[in-house]
Amino acid sequence: MMHILISNDDGWGAKGILTLVKVMRQYGEVTVVAPSGPQSGQSNAMTVGEPVSLDLVSEAPGLRIYTCSGTPTDCVKLAFHQLFTDRMPDLVCSGINHGDNGTINVLYSGTMGATFEGTVHGIPSIGWSICNHDPDADFSEMERWMPELMRLILAEPYAFGRCWNVNAPAGRIKGIRFTRHCRGYWAKEWKMVEEKPGHMLFTLAGDYVNLEPEAEDTDQWACANGYISVCPDSIDMTDYTVLKHLQEHA
Amino acid sequence: MMHILISNDDGWGAKGILTLVKVMRQYGEVTVVAPSGPQSGQSNAMTVGEPVSLDLVSEAPGLRIYTCSGTPTDCVKLAFHQLFTDRMPDLVCSGINHGDNGTINVLYSGTMGATFEGTVHGIPSIGWSICNHDPDADFSEMERWMPELMRLILAEPYAFGRCWNVNAPAGRIKGIRFTRHCRGYWAKEWKMVEEKPGHMLFTLAGDYVNLEPEAEDTDQWACANGYISVCPDSIDMTDYTVLKHLQEHA
Repeated sequence: MMHILISNDDGWGAKGILTLVKVMRQYGEVTVVAPSGPQSGQSNAMTVGEPVSLDLVSEAPGLRIYTCSGTPTDCVKLAFHQLFTDRMPDLVCSGINHGDNGTINVLYSGTMGATFEGTVHGIPSIGWSICNHDPDADFSEMERWMPELMRLILAEPYAFGRCWNVNAPAGRIKGIRFTRHCRGYWAKEWKMVEEKPGHMLFTLAGDYVNLEPEAEDTDQWACANGYISVCPDSIDMTDYTVLKHLQEHA
Repeated sequence: MMHILISNDDGWGAKGILTLVKVMRQYGEVTVVAPSGPQSGQSNAMTVGEPVSLDLVSEAPGLRIYTCSGTPTDCVKLAFHQLFTDRMPDLVCSGINHGDNGTINVLYSGTMGATFEGTVHGIPSIGWSICNHDPDADFSEMERWMPELMRLILAEPYAFGRCWNVNAPAGRIKGIRFTRHCRGYWAKEWKMVEEKPGHMLFTLAGDYVNLEPEAEDTDQWACANGYISVCPDSIDMTDYTVLKHLQEHA
């Protein structure tokens, strides 16, 4: 039986994480350390300069639930530090996020922040997301595919710095595709809500711009065409192609 | 003359950003949009669910300074959205950070968050850091090398998703090395400051663990041995080696 650490960025009461806990209990013992409130868009942020709390919510055979006042990254770091002192978990799972974490969203995602943090500490890690922001999103179709996704992912050997970014379409699912992150960005990112001379207030908005809508090997294409996207991620951000060129020519 | 956008994560009054502004004014017109307070460790976090302010601090020929209540990523996003409506900047510079942003720190760094955001919007971007956390760090040696660094970096053609992570040693500088990110992580990451049944409080701490201290091609090695590390980064986190293997075998 595995020991699985679960976190997310929508907060510990979200439907997505409850679904993930339900599925993962079939694979072993589960410890949840999830944010006490919403932490979407928190990327790999850490809480610097103020204390972070870790509170036990419930404890039952095979399932412990803690909340943390910090970011998703804080949650995973605290779990490793305080709750897994004898033995590290076998797997870190984050999500299921209510919303797409493919393409450029991987940079901003707190769900992926928690996933990357598992990888940093040498643990196989999976970020799970559904392309549906609704707090009451229907996870049943995705859930049906999760055993096959677990089988595929757990069959791959762990390598330092590697983790998994799984995004499922909101509706009916046709199959699974291994993908790369689509190139894209957010435009019209702010809505001005106040303007005085020298002072402005904005709230976050945004329209996604897909820079390669025709490419069929991307996470965006997969999800838009009814497939679950499985993208292998690396936390090593070095651009080795450029590095090789520089070392030879600069 | 270039138009250069400058941000950081230590806040707009830090010695590092003032040094960066001084150097960059030699290259063109400068717009500063920097956090109103410390935003270290904020990674690519965005402010979600509450408004963010943009305040004009001063305006003089060739230098506009704004502060923003949000994260470094918010700063750059807001600058593009509100201040560069006619023409985007030619270069985004972030820093100079008081502290090392090489190795695994690249994931957590707000300095690099601002740098990545420039790249997301298609602008050549450089993150600048010195391996010295002192708010009164001496930047004079690094400053002497910045024209050579600018010459090397600006000579490289821009490619989507690429940016630059420059880390300088604190003391005397022997030269420049092109590097990759060192494998490492933070251990002993928390200090418990309060403990009651079911409730604990922690503050962030940590000792860096270098997983490849002998490797001479890393950013850690360069800085520890008196060289400025120049690491090309990519915001595309896809692990293409694994992806190729999966597409052929899974």
